[in-house]
Amino acid sequence: MAPILKDEVDIVIPTIRSLNFLENWRPFFEPYHLIIIQDGDPTKVIGVPKGFDYELYNRNDINRILGPKANCISFKDGACRCFGFLVSKKKFIYTIDDDCFVAKDPTGKDIDTLTQHLDSLTKPSTPYFFNTLYDPYREGADFVRGYPFSLRQGVPTAVSHGLWLNIPDYDAPTQLVKPLERNTRYVDAVMTIPKGTLYPMCAMNLAFNRELIGAAMYFGIMGEGHPLGRYDDMWAGWCTKVVCDHLGYGVKTGLPYLWHSKASNPFVNLKKEYKGLFWQEEMIPFFQSVVLPKECTNAQQCYLELAKLTKEKLGPIDPYFHNFADAMVAWIEAWEEFNPPANAKTESV
Amino acid sequence: MAPILKDEVDIVIPTIRSLNFLENWRPFFEPYHLIIIQDGDPTKVIGVPKGFDYELYNRNDINRILGPKANCISFKDGACRCFGFLVSKKKFIYTIDDDCFVAKDPTGKDIDTLTQHLDSLTKPSTPYFFNTLYDPYREGADFVRGYPFSLRQGVPTAVSHGLWLNIPDYDAPTQLVKPLERNTRYVDAVMTIPKGTLYPMCAMNLAFNRELIGAAMYFGIMGEGHPLGRYDDMWAGWCTKVVCDHLGYGVKTGLPYLWHSKASNPFVNLKKEYKGLFWQEEMIPFFQSVVLPKECTNAQQCYLELAKLTKEKLGPIDPYFHNFADAMVAWIEAWEEFNPPANAKTESV
Repeated sequence: MAPILKDEVDIVIPTIRSLNFLENWRPFFEPYHLIIIQDGDPTKVIGVPKGFDYELYNRNDINRILGPKANCISFKDGACRCFGFLVSKKKFIYTIDDDCFVAKDPTGKDIDTLTQHLDSLTKPSTPYFFNTLYDPYREGADFVRGYPFSLRQGVPTAVSHGLWLNIPDYDAPTQLVKPLERNTRYVDAVMTIPKGTLYPMCAMNLAFNRELIGAAMYFGIMGEGHPLGRYDDMWAGWCTKVVCDHLGYGVKTGLPYLWHSKASNPFVNLKKEYKGLFWQEEMIPFFQSVVLPKECTNAQQCYLELAKLTKEKLGPIDPYFHNFADAMVAWIEAWEEFNPPANAKTESV
Repeated sequence: MAPILKDEVDIVIPTIRSLNFLENWRPFFEPYHLIIIQDGDPTKVIGVPKGFDYELYNRNDINRILGPKANCISFKDGACRCFGFLVSKKKFIYTIDDDCFVAKDPTGKDIDTLTQHLDSLTKPSTPYFFNTLYDPYREGADFVRGYPFSLRQGVPTAVSHGLWLNIPDYDAPTQLVKPLERNTRYVDAVMTIPKGTLYPMCAMNLAFNRELIGAAMYFGIMGEGHPLGRYDDMWAGWCTKVVCDHLGYGVKTGLPYLWHSKASNPFVNLKKEYKGLFWQEEMIPFFQSVVLPKECTNAQQCYLELAKLTKEKLGPIDPYFHNFADAMVAWIEAWEEFNPPANAKTESV
């Protein structure tokens, strides 16, 4: 793995409560800078354990910093985390939920999720052909017989999606049907999600290259004032996958695992996500059929095109998607303000 | 798992030597019927341990049974195994190499590959959207949040591709570069290879539904009299994947593992496969871009279309592909003779 300087990484954490969970992560997170996005009541004081290097933004900060564009950042929803992606100046982002703890690998060793994500992000991806022994760049593995040599150099990796032991990331209906199901299976693999294939990206344990794909890692308008919740990361996952496929970047999923401690309330979740459960039947085919024009050569340009197509193709479903598309445009305007062209690299690993 | 009657399965084994390796598999294979394809000198006597129920075909048998079409079955190459697929009357085929032995899972238990393959073949596949917790039908797993409900019933599974501990399935150049590499990683997952994605299918540890996809599981003309070897399973893998994608069937890879004992000679392998190493750079894009017409509604029809396209698109590379395309047509003629329409079901699980 290429050595990563700690000042190339920000850890982004959305929260409504004191961050005692950081004690659990201290050996792994203390060397890094944290960006804490305080959701909900801005007058509440969020405790952060001593010794961590952080900046914290509450709703008043977001309103002050973004002015009229602040509407594109969700309130009372984990989607607010993307404000941290916007104001970061780092190359890599790791974002994690505050009900997630350090898991152990099958040998009993604590899993350093961040180091594993950075390892995945700094090694190539292989989206054009499936390798049956999984990540060919991992020690003890390689490309198998029949893998084209012309594809063995891979492509830059933009996203590393990690998984969860204990409480799986289920939707409300599945939570209701299987309240006691726990994920105990440690699958020792990282794989590239093939080009043209969509997946459900969960933001509980997610890392990405902000320079390559940050502009498309927008979590939409969810929560207060909007008819939808719990689709913020799904939306960002569909958009970033489509953009990565277009730009020739890779998306990986699998390791590392963390320990997800607490299932959210399925009745509350159902209320948030119920429109999404049927809207996704139209949103996903939309993303599956999106073709971005050749002229779009970076994440910002691709995202503006997606905003246009969202209004055109999803607008007829509900007026919400008109507002959503406007928020996508506002997000990119804010992105370009905070990440002026000199910093908006289009290719780098 | 749905109960499988032992008379729904044939085990197909190509070999040039006595099948002492079957002693290792006795507890698992003895209840099933074996079809042994004896390659090379037909006068040699192949020993089969007592107690196994089998039929054996040598080259004289193949010539006698197929007459002028016998040319479509390879000689002095493992590709001859597909003769067993042709003459079987069973729904499921498991094919295995005779240098493969029973592996142990991480708990130390012997892996019953055949039962695991049948479990995979009788559960649906999910080729249209990636599930990040892998096989959603496995105990302790499900579809994660954001997985479209309309896709959760899955599609029938046609192919189950198993993996290998110890000696990985590398091409000759990789064998030469990494002579000591061994696969020690047990990845506890089965996954569907997404629609539109090709993979390198290895026949060392392979099971499939003969009724759904058998007609496309042709291993081509390799070995004696032909400029290519070690691409028989690759070819069959590309063809079956393209046909499964077209017909709406699934292809799984991952578990079960077996123990691959002996690396073949890399210098011999290089001689066999060297033309393939550059031809695959044209063959794979060919398969990636193939579009089968709607009118093709079963594996035979799809395969005849692939034969036509092979001649047209790959013929210009080398005259070999003209002969290959003719052999593909002969194979389907033989298939239809041995599997008349009443048995040629187009959909069944």
